[in-house]
Amino acid sequence: MYYIGIDLGGTNIAAGLVDESGKILYSDSLPTMKERRWSEIVKDMALLAERVVNESGHTLAEVKAVGIGCPGTIDKAHGVVVYSNNIVMHNVPVADEFRKYIDLPVFLENDANAAALGEYTTCGNGTDSFVFMTLGTGVGGGIILNGKVWSGFNGAGAEIGHQTLVFGGKPCTCGRRGCLEAYASVTALIEQTKDAMEKHPQSLMNQWAEEHQRVTGRTSFECAKNGDAAAIAVRDRYIEYVAEGICSIINVLQPEILAIGGGISREGDTLLEPINAYFAENDYNKHMKKTHIRIAKLFGDAGIVGAAKAAEAGLS
Amino acid sequence: MYYIGIDLGGTNIAAGLVDESGKILYSDSLPTMKERRWSEIVKDMALLAERVVNESGHTLAEVKAVGIGCPGTIDKAHGVVVYSNNIVMHNVPVADEFRKYIDLPVFLENDANAAALGEYTTCGNGTDSFVFMTLGTGVGGGIILNGKVWSGFNGAGAEIGHQTLVFGGKPCTCGRRGCLEAYASVTALIEQTKDAMEKHPQSLMNQWAEEHQRVTGRTSFECAKNGDAAAIAVRDRYIEYVAEGICSIINVLQPEILAIGGGISREGDTLLEPINAYFAENDYNKHMKKTHIRIAKLFGDAGIVGAAKAAEAGLS
Repeated sequence: MYYIGIDLGGTNIAAGLVDESGKILYSDSLPTMKERRWSEIVKDMALLAERVVNESGHTLAEVKAVGIGCPGTIDKAHGVVVYSNNIVMHNVPVADEFRKYIDLPVFLENDANAAALGEYTTCGNGTDSFVFMTLGTGVGGGIILNGKVWSGFNGAGAEIGHQTLVFGGKPCTCGRRGCLEAYASVTALIEQTKDAMEKHPQSLMNQWAEEHQRVTGRTSFECAKNGDAAAIAVRDRYIEYVAEGICSIINVLQPEILAIGGGISREGDTLLEPINAYFAENDYNKHMKKTHIRIAKLFGDAGIVGAAKAAEAGLS
Repeated sequence: MYYIGIDLGGTNIAAGLVDESGKILYSDSLPTMKERRWSEIVKDMALLAERVVNESGHTLAEVKAVGIGCPGTIDKAHGVVVYSNNIVMHNVPVADEFRKYIDLPVFLENDANAAALGEYTTCGNGTDSFVFMTLGTGVGGGIILNGKVWSGFNGAGAEIGHQTLVFGGKPCTCGRRGCLEAYASVTALIEQTKDAMEKHPQSLMNQWAEEHQRVTGRTSFECAKNGDAAAIAVRDRYIEYVAEGICSIINVLQPEILAIGGGISREGDTLLEPINAYFAENDYNKHMKKTHIRIAKLFGDAGIVGAAKAAEAGLS
C-alpha cells in the first residue's frame, strides 16, 4: 500500500506517491498561486494528487491515506489550518475540502514538522529522538521524540528559530528581537553579506554579486573558498550563529541526531565541520554520549516524504 | 504502600516517606559534608531513610522503592552518578551501595529532573507537558513530556539554563558565554545588584545590605517595593532576562504548564505578573492556546516528592 504526500508551499504545490519505506515512486508539482481563494488551491492539490497516482501506474485503491504539510499552525485533530500568514489562511478546513475530491483519510501536519518526519525517515531511523533544523528564508524545524512529532500541547511548538540568540538584538519577523532566525536564516546571511560588501568594496563578493546579478546565501561561501578575507569573516561568523543555536537546542533536548537542512546545507562539510568543532568546545554535556550532527538528505523531497509519513502516523 | 524520596544536595541530605498521592508523611535531613568519601554519604542517606520511616510510625515492609535525586549526570539504568562536580562523584554506583543497607529497589534521577517530577505531581497534574525552571545558584530545570521526564537520549538534557541569552556575553559556569544562567540565576542577580549599588551609592540597596550584612537575591526586590529607582531597574531587568528565557523555552516546547521555582519564586506575583506580560507580548504563538506560567508550590520539598515519584516511575 501507498501514501500520497503533499507539500503545500508558498510557490509550489508538490505531491508524490510514497511507499511504506519512504521512497517516492512518482512526484510532480504545480504553482500555488497563493493569492487565489483557498478552495481553488485545495482543488488543485487534489487534482495533482490524482495525476501523480495515475502517472505512477498505480490506482487510488492502492492508497491508504493522504498527508498534507501546510505552513502555519495546524489543528491536526480537525484537519484545519488555524492560521498561516504565508499562504493566508484562517481556520480553513483543508482536510474536509480535500475529501470532496478524493475520498481517503486526510491528515494535516505543519510543513516544518512534516519535513522533519521526512528527514527522520531517511537519516534518523532507529533513533528515539531527532531534531531537524532548516536554514532557509527563516530558521524552522521539527522535533521528533520517542519516534513522534513533538509540537507542544497546542501544536505551536518546535519554533527553534525563535530561541533568543542576542537579547534585545536585531528585530525578528516574529515581532521579538534577537531570535536565532534574525542571525542564522539565509535572509540574515544575505544581509550580513551585503553589509560586508559595503564595508569592503574590494572584496570578491562585490565582483561575484555583479557577475551573478544578485547576492545570495552562496555569495560569501563561494568567495571564501577563493580566500577572500571579508567573505571568510562573513561565512565564519554566520556558522558561529548557527552553531550557537544548535548548542542551545542540544543543551535542552539532547536529541540523538540533529540534521541540518535548507539551501545552505548543500555546503556540506564546509558548514558541518566548523559546527562540529564549535559544538565539541561549547556543549554542556561533557560526560555522556553526544548528539550526532549531520547534513539532512532529502532537500526538496522532505516535505512530500514527511507528509506521507504523517498520513501513516495519522492512521496508526 | 509508600516510597522513600531522598534529595542529595550539596549542603544537606533530605529524606521523606511519601505516599502515592505525593504527600510527605514525615521528613528529616542531615548535613551532607560533601568533602567526605562518597560511601560515607551513601551510608548516611540509608541511615536517614531508615530513621524517617521509623519516626513516621511505618515500617520498611510498607515501602515499595527508594528514589534518590542526585546532582550531575545520571546513568539511570545502572543507578550510577556518571559525573557530578557539585558533590564530586565520577562513576559512583550509588544504587548498589545504598542497597547494602536497605534491600529495596533503588532508582536514581538527576536532582533537577526529580524536582520537576515533584512539582509536576503537585501543580502539573493531568497535563501532558510541563516544564519546571529553578532560579537558584544556577538556572536548572526539568522537562516532562507525555507525563515522563525527558532528559535526552543520553540523560544529559533539560539544561534550560544553558540556552544562549546573549551571544558572546558573560562567561557561564559551563564554560560557554552568554547562557541564560549567567543572567537569570540568583548568583547573577546578586552580581547585578552589587553593580547597581556601586553605581548608585545613595540607593536603598546599600542601606539594606549594611543592615543585613550581605547582598542577596532579595535585596533589589525588597528595596524596589520601597520605590528605590536603582532597585526597580535591577529587578525589572532581571525579570526581563527570566522572561526572555521562558519565551525561548516555550517557543521550542510549548508545554501546557511552566512552573518557576527556586528562592526567587517566593516573590510570587511581583515576579509572575511582569513575566506574564512579557510573554503575552513576545510569544511566537499568537493563535493557539498558550502555556500557563505559574509559581511552583513545593519549594524545598520538590526534591523529596520527585525522588519518590522517580521511584514509582522506575517500578512501572
